[in-house]
Amino acid sequence: MSIHKLFYPEGVVVIGSMAEGKIGHEIALQIRRGGYEKLFAVNPKAQGVHSVPGYDAVSKIGHPVDLAVIATPPSTVARVMEECGRAGIKAAAIITAGFAEVGNHEGQTEIKNVAGQYGIRFIGPNCAGFVNSSIRLCPTLETRPPAGKVGFITQSGAVGGVFLGMAKEEGLGISKFINYGNGADLNELDLLQYYIDNPETEVVCLYMESVSDGRAFMKIACECTRKKPLIVMKSGRTSSGMRAALSHTSSLAGSDDVFDSCLKQCGAIRVFSIEEMFDLGKGFAILPPLSGKKVAIVTNSGGPAILAADKAEEMDLDVMEPGKSIKEELSGFLPGHCATSNPIDLTVEGNENGYRNTLQTVLKEYDAVLALNITTPYLDSIPLAKGIAEASKQSDKPVLTSFLPRYLVSEAVNFLERQGIPNYYTAERAVTVISHMANQREAMQLCDPDMEESTLPGTSPMLEPEAVAWLVENNIPVPENRFADDMDETLKACQEIGYPVVMKVVSKDIVHKTDSGGVVLDIKNEDAASSAFNNIKQAAADKDFRGVIIYPYIKGGREVLVGISSDPQFGPVVVFGMGGIYTEIFRDISMRVAPVNVAEAKIMVRETKLFKLLKGARGEKPVDIKALAELISTVSQLPFQYPDLDEMDLNPVFMFQEGLLVGDVRVIRKNK
Amino acid sequence: MSIHKLFYPEGVVVIGSMAEGKIGHEIALQIRRGGYEKLFAVNPKAQGVHSVPGYDAVSKIGHPVDLAVIATPPSTVARVMEECGRAGIKAAAIITAGFAEVGNHEGQTEIKNVAGQYGIRFIGPNCAGFVNSSIRLCPTLETRPPAGKVGFITQSGAVGGVFLGMAKEEGLGISKFINYGNGADLNELDLLQYYIDNPETEVVCLYMESVSDGRAFMKIACECTRKKPLIVMKSGRTSSGMRAALSHTSSLAGSDDVFDSCLKQCGAIRVFSIEEMFDLGKGFAILPPLSGKKVAIVTNSGGPAILAADKAEEMDLDVMEPGKSIKEELSGFLPGHCATSNPIDLTVEGNENGYRNTLQTVLKEYDAVLALNITTPYLDSIPLAKGIAEASKQSDKPVLTSFLPRYLVSEAVNFLERQGIPNYYTAERAVTVISHMANQREAMQLCDPDMEESTLPGTSPMLEPEAVAWLVENNIPVPENRFADDMDETLKACQEIGYPVVMKVVSKDIVHKTDSGGVVLDIKNEDAASSAFNNIKQAAADKDFRGVIIYPYIKGGREVLVGISSDPQFGPVVVFGMGGIYTEIFRDISMRVAPVNVAEAKIMVRETKLFKLLKGARGEKPVDIKALAELISTVSQLPFQYPDLDEMDLNPVFMFQEGLLVGDVRVIRKNK
Repeated sequence: MSIHKLFYPEGVVVIGSMAEGKIGHEIALQIRRGGYEKLFAVNPKAQGVHSVPGYDAVSKIGHPVDLAVIATPPSTVARVMEECGRAGIKAAAIITAGFAEVGNHEGQTEIKNVAGQYGIRFIGPNCAGFVNSSIRLCPTLETRPPAGKVGFITQSGAVGGVFLGMAKEEGLGISKFINYGNGADLNELDLLQYYIDNPETEVVCLYMESVSDGRAFMKIACECTRKKPLIVMKSGRTSSGMRAALSHTSSLAGSDDVFDSCLKQCGAIRVFSIEEMFDLGKGFAILPPLSGKKVAIVTNSGGPAILAADKAEEMDLDVMEPGKSIKEELSGFLPGHCATSNPIDLTVEGNENGYRNTLQTVLKEYDAVLALNITTPYLDSIPLAKGIAEASKQSDKPVLTSFLPRYLVSEAVNFLERQGIPNYYTAERAVTVISHMANQREAMQLCDPDMEESTLPGTSPMLEPEAVAWLVENNIPVPENRFADDMDETLKACQEIGYPVVMKVVSKDIVHKTDSGGVVLDIKNEDAASSAFNNIKQAAADKDFRGVIIYPYIKGGREVLVGISSDPQFGPVVVFGMGGIYTEIFRDISMRVAPVNVAEAKIMVRETKLFKLLKGARGEKPVDIKALAELISTVSQLPFQYPDLDEMDLNPVFMFQEGLLVGDVRVIRKNK
Repeated sequence: MSIHKLFYPEGVVVIGSMAEGKIGHEIALQIRRGGYEKLFAVNPKAQGVHSVPGYDAVSKIGHPVDLAVIATPPSTVARVMEECGRAGIKAAAIITAGFAEVGNHEGQTEIKNVAGQYGIRFIGPNCAGFVNSSIRLCPTLETRPPAGKVGFITQSGAVGGVFLGMAKEEGLGISKFINYGNGADLNELDLLQYYIDNPETEVVCLYMESVSDGRAFMKIACECTRKKPLIVMKSGRTSSGMRAALSHTSSLAGSDDVFDSCLKQCGAIRVFSIEEMFDLGKGFAILPPLSGKKVAIVTNSGGPAILAADKAEEMDLDVMEPGKSIKEELSGFLPGHCATSNPIDLTVEGNENGYRNTLQTVLKEYDAVLALNITTPYLDSIPLAKGIAEASKQSDKPVLTSFLPRYLVSEAVNFLERQGIPNYYTAERAVTVISHMANQREAMQLCDPDMEESTLPGTSPMLEPEAVAWLVENNIPVPENRFADDMDETLKACQEIGYPVVMKVVSKDIVHKTDSGGVVLDIKNEDAASSAFNNIKQAAADKDFRGVIIYPYIKGGREVLVGISSDPQFGPVVVFGMGGIYTEIFRDISMRVAPVNVAEAKIMVRETKLFKLLKGARGEKPVDIKALAELISTVSQLPFQYPDLDEMDLNPVFMFQEGLLVGDVRVIRKNK
């Protein structure tokens, strides 16, 4: 398996100029300094560097070589790859830039073809290389990080460089780092798949700017989160280009929202800055698992602790006061001027014993403890760190710290981190880590739609009576209805349904029925029905008038929207939210990559603010959430059953205490 | 003026033990190390420290002394203050803790009384002292910062300590720092007032946990922002205690929301973390003013620039592409592989010339430039810094940088900051600074209500006909209406108003009219009116039934809410938002400390999401925003005209294309 050969090669050759200042030279030096031994250089001058021997051809090395690190000019790369292939090399890191990223797609295709011919797997071109700490192999221009448990995959070399710089500065250990650059061969999917089973990697951080295959990504991401935490940062989230080609229901759903939904479904954690990714990677690498949301804040000063408590409450952690017995225990050993509510303030007099005893006590009741120490030049922080570390060692719960100001506490912070206690630059950042850990959810089993495929019935565009019949066929509840194309039938139909009724025009030509006088609500009697029919018919005089559809007039239900849209990366997406004009203003919607089961659909409903209303705000009766979740799940499967279904809106769906009814439906077929 | 004596004393005495490890000792050393010369120590042993002479009484010093720094045990502080007073000292910093913060209010009052008697102004007790860089005076236990332009005021010593630690680490200059602790005498109001006219302070940072007098704070804050930027961090924003004692309209308005509104009105900038305050203080201290929202991002690597662009777009900055001529100019000197859209990517080959020329070019079109440099161990960042600095020098627009990874760029960063270019830890943090600078608005002139006071008319609680008449008296538009207390009058009134009408019960006892069958909508004819009257009367059978009030039935208006609530710190507050059940769910409200003029009221309306609907979303006609702003302004003055008005809801207010009508009113008087 060649990805494994990439990370664990039997020998490495750097191909490129070894002249000072050249990239080949820098990389060879970096690898050698990193401690990897079986290293060779190849270039036309057969030049080596330091103790690295140089050859003028790969074939002349005379030692097994599995990995080629290529830093030759772009026009030569294909030829170099061919030479590697003939020499039996199965893995390559192509550092050289100047391919697809500057429009040179032919060059990139050529490389790919050669690689395919010889069975070479490679990263790049246009990449910053990789790091495998377990064998001290660092074919990269970026910072060499300490060894550890965090696996990092990045599309951008620079983001990788910043992360590795932070890792070096803060002493965070990295198991593997890789930058796949243009991703001509190996991309985020292959690499994530590899990290899942890599035993040295206990948490995966992934930075990406684009998803190569949405559904394949989901599958692998779900597999990952069942084994280890996955932290994802995706940029390019606002560019207007990302939102193109999506309409109506989709217009609520910039594809970044879909990506966001995908991560939720996978149980992955999304972050929005390198610092946040770093903080969280450090937390997961060092801390034991968190089992709840109860957080105690132990401090020696008020202000920063209040800031932490504010942030914790905002992030939905539970900063509850200690129970009576814990409070009593605290009062037993703390001086009277200490606050024993939460935050627990030991004041500037807080010492080693105070921190140790307080932590030991609150760890009995809370799920995690954040210990703050804001010091001044005349105080020593080491004893406090010792007290905290001792208490932490006796517990299997997460203990985090924020010691400040930084320039006064570096020794104490090093001590803490050696003891398995991550320290954060501010208390708020520590709180963010706890919150992410607490909100981590299990990956949903991605439903695998395996159903008989069929074709949407009816005309194009689908007429309302056809659409309604099709909904019924698929077990989606609609109100009783009748189609009628003349006055007699219309009055008969109204009679059968029972007044008050609603009458709507049926016409291929009329899309906005309400605007064009094609809808009459609350028709109370035969007179009104008769004039409604005449008015609708007249309004459609020069259109393709087929008749009218009649429903009972429904009042009092809570109105929601359920829809399907299609994302270019992820395919069918199911959307739930508030119907009507407010939808666009408040964007109170939730979405998922389709299909979803009923359990996931319930989570979707609970995610919206609207949920407060549906479950019965202000003393009103709750609506039938179960029926709603079933509808969402059913709807989410339709695009798989009917592959020609592109978009659909059920809007409004009337929600009742028992059951629901779809008030209007719009179906869009795929363009063939 | 004693605050001035505090900051600029003629001589300083530290009163407290000079034994090693004691606070008095540490402070005396700190002052001496800071470089202040005229320093004396007083304690029973007449002990000095290093070159600081010791005396056993203040009166024996024999040199003018204006400031006493007191670090004696709490029980002795009043006596020490008395001694100081007798010796003619007019300013004190009481470091000693153990007063109001631990319940010792008597002790604190005693100190205050002594101070009052001798005309001493003081900070503390329970404070960390202060710094006045301009005379190198540092009576504090916290870090001594470099001298500069940022003035800092803090209620929390620890937050101050963290800020000063950052200032030292990053070389940010501080003009004055002060921690007022318990604020028994000098508090945020006095100190802010002093900083306004302090010429060395060019930007003010303020951390507070409570406001001592909301309206006084607003007045001073407005005065400050007309002269220099004011950056405020207030914590304690989530604690449930802050939200107590507020009801209904007020229940939308935790007093933290009111504080937020106050800052908007004052043109102050609110931040939520010490890092953000620091970043912004640095920006304002160093950068020239920003005149617009157009930001160019110049980079040598893609990923971090995309992250910056995402953040900028989210923060409402304009990351537009360069115009045609600028693009042509860029293409004239940049290599073909560089991206000339925005971000402008010079790639890893970006050098001194590239950065200089690019910045010079884009500074012609953009309001600010953010220059990124993500480097690797083998590259030198100094030339890039030079190129950026040269371009910046030729422009009067803000140029910010983010050079990373930090451990590789410290020399370049020092160079940049010496050249007046602030560097930020991440590009996103730099973007946040630009956004805050761009969104800074001018302080509103706080309206000074100067009107004849009068008393609310009618009974208590106010009956609807009384309330409606009172609204009319105050030029607030209500629909035509009639009061009737028997069937004949009712039918006559309905006739006069014209069907369809609305009928509502009038009763002192019935608060929730709808719930108790006291409201009938859409009454279409005399029959319906007659039965409505009977039903309402019957429903109120065992209540204080006074009659009914009749309005026309209004349809089709957009419904909003305008209200008054009362904040414990700021007094009357005016609230605008969406009416009905959605108010509480979406919290789409805006508020201001009352009164507001029409211009400010318009800003309030524009702040809500609802505004999109009001101005005519989806092709609908816009409603009368001018009338709405006039209503909000009128309503905001009522609490000053009627001091016994506590709360009021106008809900719904029906908005039309022209004009508006108040649909329902509820008035609550103050408890006497």
